[in-house]
Amino acid sequence: MSQEKVGVAIIGCGTVGGATAKVITDDIAFINKRSGLYLELTAVVDRDVAALTRQGLDESLFEPEFQKVLENDEIKIVVELVGGLTIAKQFMEKALKAGKHVVTANKALLAHYGKELFALARENNAAIGFEASCGGGIPIIKALTDGLLANRIDAFFGIVNGTCNYILTEMTEKGQSYKEALSAAQKGGLAEADPTLDVNGMDSAHKLAIMSSLSYSEHVNLDDLSVEGIDKLDIQDIKMGQELGYIVKLIAAARKTDKGLDLSVSPSFISTDHPLARVSGAFNAVSVYGHAVGHTMYYGRGAGGSPTASAVVADILALALGITQNAFNSLTCWPDQTPDAQLIDRKDSVNRYYLRFKTDDKPGVVAHISKLLGDKGISISSMIQKETEEPVSVVIITHEAREGDILDVLEEVEKLNEIRETPIYIKIAEEHQETIA
Amino acid sequence: MSQEKVGVAIIGCGTVGGATAKVITDDIAFINKRSGLYLELTAVVDRDVAALTRQGLDESLFEPEFQKVLENDEIKIVVELVGGLTIAKQFMEKALKAGKHVVTANKALLAHYGKELFALARENNAAIGFEASCGGGIPIIKALTDGLLANRIDAFFGIVNGTCNYILTEMTEKGQSYKEALSAAQKGGLAEADPTLDVNGMDSAHKLAIMSSLSYSEHVNLDDLSVEGIDKLDIQDIKMGQELGYIVKLIAAARKTDKGLDLSVSPSFISTDHPLARVSGAFNAVSVYGHAVGHTMYYGRGAGGSPTASAVVADILALALGITQNAFNSLTCWPDQTPDAQLIDRKDSVNRYYLRFKTDDKPGVVAHISKLLGDKGISISSMIQKETEEPVSVVIITHEAREGDILDVLEEVEKLNEIRETPIYIKIAEEHQETIA
Repeated sequence: MSQEKVGVAIIGCGTVGGATAKVITDDIAFINKRSGLYLELTAVVDRDVAALTRQGLDESLFEPEFQKVLENDEIKIVVELVGGLTIAKQFMEKALKAGKHVVTANKALLAHYGKELFALARENNAAIGFEASCGGGIPIIKALTDGLLANRIDAFFGIVNGTCNYILTEMTEKGQSYKEALSAAQKGGLAEADPTLDVNGMDSAHKLAIMSSLSYSEHVNLDDLSVEGIDKLDIQDIKMGQELGYIVKLIAAARKTDKGLDLSVSPSFISTDHPLARVSGAFNAVSVYGHAVGHTMYYGRGAGGSPTASAVVADILALALGITQNAFNSLTCWPDQTPDAQLIDRKDSVNRYYLRFKTDDKPGVVAHISKLLGDKGISISSMIQKETEEPVSVVIITHEAREGDILDVLEEVEKLNEIRETPIYIKIAEEHQETIA
Repeated sequence: MSQEKVGVAIIGCGTVGGATAKVITDDIAFINKRSGLYLELTAVVDRDVAALTRQGLDESLFEPEFQKVLENDEIKIVVELVGGLTIAKQFMEKALKAGKHVVTANKALLAHYGKELFALARENNAAIGFEASCGGGIPIIKALTDGLLANRIDAFFGIVNGTCNYILTEMTEKGQSYKEALSAAQKGGLAEADPTLDVNGMDSAHKLAIMSSLSYSEHVNLDDLSVEGIDKLDIQDIKMGQELGYIVKLIAAARKTDKGLDLSVSPSFISTDHPLARVSGAFNAVSVYGHAVGHTMYYGRGAGGSPTASAVVADILALALGITQNAFNSLTCWPDQTPDAQLIDRKDSVNRYYLRFKTDDKPGVVAHISKLLGDKGISISSMIQKETEEPVSVVIITHEAREGDILDVLEEVEKLNEIRETPIYIKIAEEHQETIA
C-alpha cells in the first residue's frame, strides 16, 4: 500500500480517540516520512461535534454517520474506540463486513467475542490490530506474536491494570487504606467514578484471556478464569508482607503445567527482588518466560490517552504496511483458529501461600493450625506471631501447596473457637524458573 | 510463502549457531505449527563437522562449502553467525547477491558496514533481520521499528552488554575490585579470555550506533561516538555512589537535543529508583522514551546461545512471513536511506556529574575547587568529605553542567598542589522527563 492513500476513521472521540486523532494529525508528516506511507485521518465519528472540540480537534473531521465511513473507499482502517460490548461490536462487525481493517483497544470485546470477530475478519480478508488492548502503550502483543514467536511460553505474569497498581502502590508506600487510595486515584483521574471493572480484577482478566490465548494458541474462555480483585485487601497484610520481603501486586498469571493452563488474576505477593515488584503507580509490566529466551519483561504506561494512542497508531501502521495481514494469514494463534484451552481446576493450582489468622492468644491454637496444615501435607516455611493486642495476628508462609488443600485447611481453622475472623490467604508469585539450556 | 518450504542455512556453528540449529530442529514441529510456515534447517556451514557434533547436532546437516548454500534454491534464508568483520561480510554479501535473506547477530558488522549491506540487500530484493544484534533475546529492534513506530524517540538508555553488567553487579553487590569481578566473569563463561571489546565499551557502541540509527532515521557513524568502558572504574566510586543512592551501570545513551543527537557509552550513575538500576548480572535492558508512549522498558538476557537464538529464529520467521520485507520496503529508517546524523560535541553534553578528588587535608582546597566550579557557572548539588586517612576523598555532585566545562575545571583542579590523583568524574544518567501530554 506504500504510495496509495490510506484513510483512517476513528470511532469514539474520548481520551484515547482524541489522543489518537492528535497523533495522526499533528505528527502526520513525521509518521508518513518515517513509515513511508501516505496515511490520512479522514473522519472522526461521534454523536456530537463537541466531542471533537473538547479534544482540540478540527471540526472538519467530524462525521456523525458511521455509514458514511463504511461507504468511503478511501478509508481502509477503522479505529474502534467506543468501548463496551454492544455498539462497539456492531461498529466492528460492520467495518469488517465492509472489508476494512479494524484497530481496537477494547479488551472486553475481544475477551468476550474475539473468536467470532477474528473469524469475521478472516471471511472478509481483513485483519484486526489490538496492541492497545493489553498493556496500553507497551508492545506486548507484538512481543508474544512476533518477537517471542520461536518460544514455548512457560509462564507470564502481568501487572496490567494501572488503576489497581496505582492504588496498591499508594497503600504500600503511604500506608493508606484501600478506600483512601481509591479516593486518591479517583481524584487524580486514575480511577473511574465507578471503578468496579478495574478493582474487581475483570479488566485484568480480559487481558489475561487475550494474552494467554495468543501465548498458548488455545482459546481461553473468560468465564473459566479464576478472578479476584484488590477491593478486599487489608492494609495490614500489605504491611506484613513488606516485613517479609514481599510487595503485593494484582497479577494476571499464566503458567503451563502438565495438566493444563493455570490462569488466574489475584492480588499476589511478589519478592522485592523481582523486576515486577518495582513497577509502581500507573505503570504496567509483563514478565514473560520463554523456553528459549528465558525471562523477558516489557514495561510502560498501561493506560492514558497518549500512551494508548502510541499502540493504536502502531497498529494502524502495521496494518497499512501489510504486516498484520501477513501474520494474521499465517500464524495459528488467533482465537478463531484455536481449540479450547484446557485449564486446571483452581484447586489444583500449586503455589506458596501467605496465611493470616486472627486468634485469641490461647495456648494450643498455633499448634492446632500447624497440625491441620500438616495433615494435608502442607509444610510451613516461616511463621510470625506479633506481640500486639488481642486478638493476635498469626502469619504463616507455606511451602508449595495445592490451593484446594489450603482452602480446606482454612475452612477447618475458621471453625475453631479462638479464631476471630475469616482467615486471609494470599498467593505468592514466585520467581519463575527459567528453562533455557 | 506460507506453504512453500523455506530452507534455512546457518553459517558458523558456535554457541549461538548451535543453539539456533537446535531450536529449528528440536522444536521445528512446534514452530511450524505456530507460524503456519514450512521451515526446515537445510545446512550448517562450518570448517569442520566437529563444530556440529560439539553442539549435539546431526552430522547430516554439515556443509563445508558455502557455495553449495548459494546454489541451493530451497535455501531462502542465510543465518550469519560467524562474527567478525571480514569473512562474515563476504558471506553476507554473497548471500544477498544470491537473493537470499540474511539474519545476523553481528553488531560490529552492522555498525561498521550497515549502510552498504542494507543497500546491497535492497538491490537484490532481499532483507536483513538483525534483532539478535542488540540486546540478545530482547525484541528491542522490533520495538523501535514497529511497536514504537508512531513515536519520536526523545531518548533511550540501554544496558546492552551482559559481560559489563555482570562485572558491575559483582563489584556493586560484593564489593569486588574490577579485576576480581572480571576474573569471576571469565571463570563463569560470562567474559571472553580477551574481554577487550566488551569492557572497553565498543560492543555497547556498536549497539548504540544501530539503535540510534533506527530511532532517529539518521546514519550514525561509529567513529563519531563518545565511548568509555568500565575497565578504569574504581570500587571506591561504586561504594560512594551507593551511599548517595546511585548504582553504576555501563549505559549506552541517546538523547535528542536542539543541537543534534547526544550519543555516548559511559559508566554512569543511575538512581536506585530507576528500573534500569535493578537490571542485574547478565541481564540487559533498554529504557526508551517516546513522545507519545512515554517511558517503556525492555528487559531480558542480552547474550547466551539460547536467548540469542530466540531472536535469530524470530527474525527467520518474520522474513519467511514476509513481514520484514514489508517493513524494509517502506520504512525510511534503514541505514542505506538515511542522512548522516548530526551529533553534538561531547563537550556540549549537559548532565549532572559525580566528581571525586583525592586531596591533602589542608584548609582552602575545597573552597578552591568550589570557586573553580562557580567560575564556570557550575553549581554544587551536594558534597561529601569522608573522615578517612589522608589524602582525603572529596565527592561533589553537581547540578547540570556542560561536560566541557567540567573537564576544564578538572584540569585546573589537577594542577593544585594538594591534589594527589587525577580527579574522577562520572556522568549521572537522570530519569529522563517524559514529554507525553
